[in-house]
Amino acid sequence: MPLRWYTVVVDCKDVGAQARWWAEVLDWRIVYEAEDEVVLVPPHALEERAQSIPPAERGQGLVFVSVPEGKTVKNRLHIDLAPGADDDQAAEVERLVALGATRINVGQDESSASWVVLADPEGNEFCVLSPRDQ
Amino acid sequence: MPLRWYTVVVDCKDVGAQARWWAEVLDWRIVYEAEDEVVLVPPHALEERAQSIPPAERGQGLVFVSVPEGKTVKNRLHIDLAPGADDDQAAEVERLVALGATRINVGQDESSASWVVLADPEGNEFCVLSPRDQ
Repeated sequence: MPLRWYTVVVDCKDVGAQARWWAEVLDWRIVYEAEDEVVLVPPHALEERAQSIPPAERGQGLVFVSVPEGKTVKNRLHIDLAPGADDDQAAEVERLVALGATRINVGQDESSASWVVLADPEGNEFCVLSPRDQ
Repeated sequence: MPLRWYTVVVDCKDVGAQARWWAEVLDWRIVYEAEDEVVLVPPHALEERAQSIPPAERGQGLVFVSVPEGKTVKNRLHIDLAPGADDDQAAEVERLVALGATRINVGQDESSASWVVLADPEGNEFCVLSPRDQ
């Protein structure tokens, strides 16, 4: 496993605000914060036992970096979130909207789609899928 | 942990070609393939023992979907890859270039940056970081 997928990097206008927003959404932790870069990892990554997970089997981090330009078109990469099997998709969507997410339509048929499309405070599209554990 | 980061979704012109390319790059496995959508997961996710990993501690999948439009601007989200601590960044970059990646400059100072910026066959920017295990 010579190369592993290490992080996703998100270009931002306000790197601190974006990082704190996504940390709240995911309940993740800020492990590095500078003016132009903030790094988030899931809580278990900070526990001693995480050291025993082989690198190839570790999940990805989320990095926010400052860029001068704003968002102009629909992103070509986006994040999908999923509620657990016993959680409620609609309630999660309401939670995110209360945090500052916006419901958007990128072409999905809202009467039949099992997912909900939202945008984060800087307009980055993401989806909330139907509940699942796998 | 009501919501977890489940996947990253990549818009594509040629969903099959893109998925196979990234599967080769990461040594990941195709677990679903349709004309308009292909899903990749890391090899360990297909092993029995993966069922015992709590959902919140599982890594993310990678999904490729067909879209009609092409890429027009630098992506606002991108993937960072990392070689293991004992692996060679330059050799990994050469391997990716041989597979069809292109070296690009998005503003980085190539004389000092510790990472290498590449584009995949559809032009999606990604980086190969310096070797690391953490």
